[in-house]
Amino acid sequence: MQKEYVVGVDLGGTKILTAVADLEGNILARVRKDTEAEKGKEAVIQKIKDTVYGVIKETDIDLSQVKGIGLGVPGPVNIKKGVIKHTPNLKLDNVNIIEELRELDTPIFLENDANAAALGEKWFGAGKAAENMIYMTVSTGIGGGVIINKEIFHGAGDAAGEIGHMTIIPDSDVQCGCGNYGCWEAIASGTALGRLGREAVEAGKDTLMSKLVNDPSEVNGAVVAKAAEKGDKVAREIMDKIADYLGIGMASLINIFNPDTIVIGGGVSQSWKLIEDKVNSTIKARAMNSLIEDVNIITAQLGSDVGVLGAVATALAELDLL
Amino acid sequence: MQKEYVVGVDLGGTKILTAVADLEGNILARVRKDTEAEKGKEAVIQKIKDTVYGVIKETDIDLSQVKGIGLGVPGPVNIKKGVIKHTPNLKLDNVNIIEELRELDTPIFLENDANAAALGEKWFGAGKAAENMIYMTVSTGIGGGVIINKEIFHGAGDAAGEIGHMTIIPDSDVQCGCGNYGCWEAIASGTALGRLGREAVEAGKDTLMSKLVNDPSEVNGAVVAKAAEKGDKVAREIMDKIADYLGIGMASLINIFNPDTIVIGGGVSQSWKLIEDKVNSTIKARAMNSLIEDVNIITAQLGSDVGVLGAVATALAELDLL
Repeated sequence: MQKEYVVGVDLGGTKILTAVADLEGNILARVRKDTEAEKGKEAVIQKIKDTVYGVIKETDIDLSQVKGIGLGVPGPVNIKKGVIKHTPNLKLDNVNIIEELRELDTPIFLENDANAAALGEKWFGAGKAAENMIYMTVSTGIGGGVIINKEIFHGAGDAAGEIGHMTIIPDSDVQCGCGNYGCWEAIASGTALGRLGREAVEAGKDTLMSKLVNDPSEVNGAVVAKAAEKGDKVAREIMDKIADYLGIGMASLINIFNPDTIVIGGGVSQSWKLIEDKVNSTIKARAMNSLIEDVNIITAQLGSDVGVLGAVATALAELDLL
Repeated sequence: MQKEYVVGVDLGGTKILTAVADLEGNILARVRKDTEAEKGKEAVIQKIKDTVYGVIKETDIDLSQVKGIGLGVPGPVNIKKGVIKHTPNLKLDNVNIIEELRELDTPIFLENDANAAALGEKWFGAGKAAENMIYMTVSTGIGGGVIINKEIFHGAGDAAGEIGHMTIIPDSDVQCGCGNYGCWEAIASGTALGRLGREAVEAGKDTLMSKLVNDPSEVNGAVVAKAAEKGDKVAREIMDKIADYLGIGMASLINIFNPDTIVIGGGVSQSWKLIEDKVNSTIKARAMNSLIEDVNIITAQLGSDVGVLGAVATALAELDLL
């Protein structure tokens, strides 16, 4: 019998990363192309196909050996129908991507990108031992995927896991992209970190941050983290504030889900050491002790491969090969 | 073949309600006894047995026709081990109740009472059409049970669904019984409703509530609701505040779980008409539109039978008879 493989496609707003992997998730080859979303739907779909053909060509396998293709999409999807509902950064709204990719003659499995990343970390990364796991990615926003009994929990409309839109500070004056005020991602994401840093610099506070940039508008989350690492007091206070907000949301998730594992991904996870203590002390104050004992909080392991390995895991999961 | 039945036991802090039901959940007979928790563990366990023997006696069936006994417990449980971990209102801590009830010679299935109630409403009450459902009971506290793919979601340590301990107002000065400040149940339960009413009366506000009681200390949630029903402005404002807090938490749960159904039980559900509009307007402002479209918010149907029917459903679920 010929050996079997799957393909994972990490469709992003700026790049498409496609890989072919064996059934254990070992990547044989990968291809990366700029998405060039501005060229429109047809061009992006053609580019997805090109990356699939391209990555197969890089190996000595044949497309017929590919049992399925997992596709991680940056936006809500209808999994059963194979429809991409909406993509804030692409022009792929209401696209039946299974039909569009029919010429590949291989089963296509859709997943929201945060859910795919959760599956990736669960099967090939930090969460290998997890059964009930929350993956949270803290970068420009806060996204998440909830794994229950080793499977993604999809909810009624394939949209479960919008943990970034828990209301954390109801009377906050920070409006979220979703319209609500005080959402977790509005106040505790990397974007929020940058905003607080910028405000401190603009307010003329005595901080290293102002020396790390040419203009206050350049202060972002990474600048705040860098200044905090060097011991800057103002930056540290900001990191502590974000850490407290992260801890509040995580404590609620622990009380709601009683997970065995929380995996932290995204840019903020790279500064985890700077915020870990404060996050944990907030969780300790706010979550129930027995539930804290049940949970293991760890940082993600897959780095920039999380999306494509998540897409691989999506295909393997749907094919019942995990 | 002899017809088969199950028994449900609703073990409460003040009463034990036990019923025998057919496999469709129709109750044939029920027995109610005071728990008399102060008499201690052995007495309570004996009383559980007595209610089971007693309820069977009320019918013409034999204990051998009972395929299983579901037991709803007011506190955390270890389902696999059959252990009641802790009961705030009973003296049944770390009790292996399966062993204690062995003489009944019937499989015993434990469930936390809020989870049991969720199962009851799902199978025999308001949630019959639900697949992904959140049951929330708002009375002295806020409890909950989360149903995913028609089954209770238990989490890593059988403690998932502590939705009442989401932090809703992080800087609240109201401490919850769990130790945290600003928990949902500390600020939005019937207890919180009563507290706000009491504070208004004690502050000398011009309100009907002060006429409904002999002493301000007698103001409870029911008094506030009664005054609000009669159009009292102060009571209405308090109901609106509680409704807003309920809506904040429900919006977060909608964004996190994308449920198809939320069932509201407990005392506050009897005042649902008074708060429904405000709850819905808060949800509309804070949850994502597509997720609001997916969810049906309804009040519980089983009244005081919810616990015992939940225990019946627990047994039926564990026996794969649902």
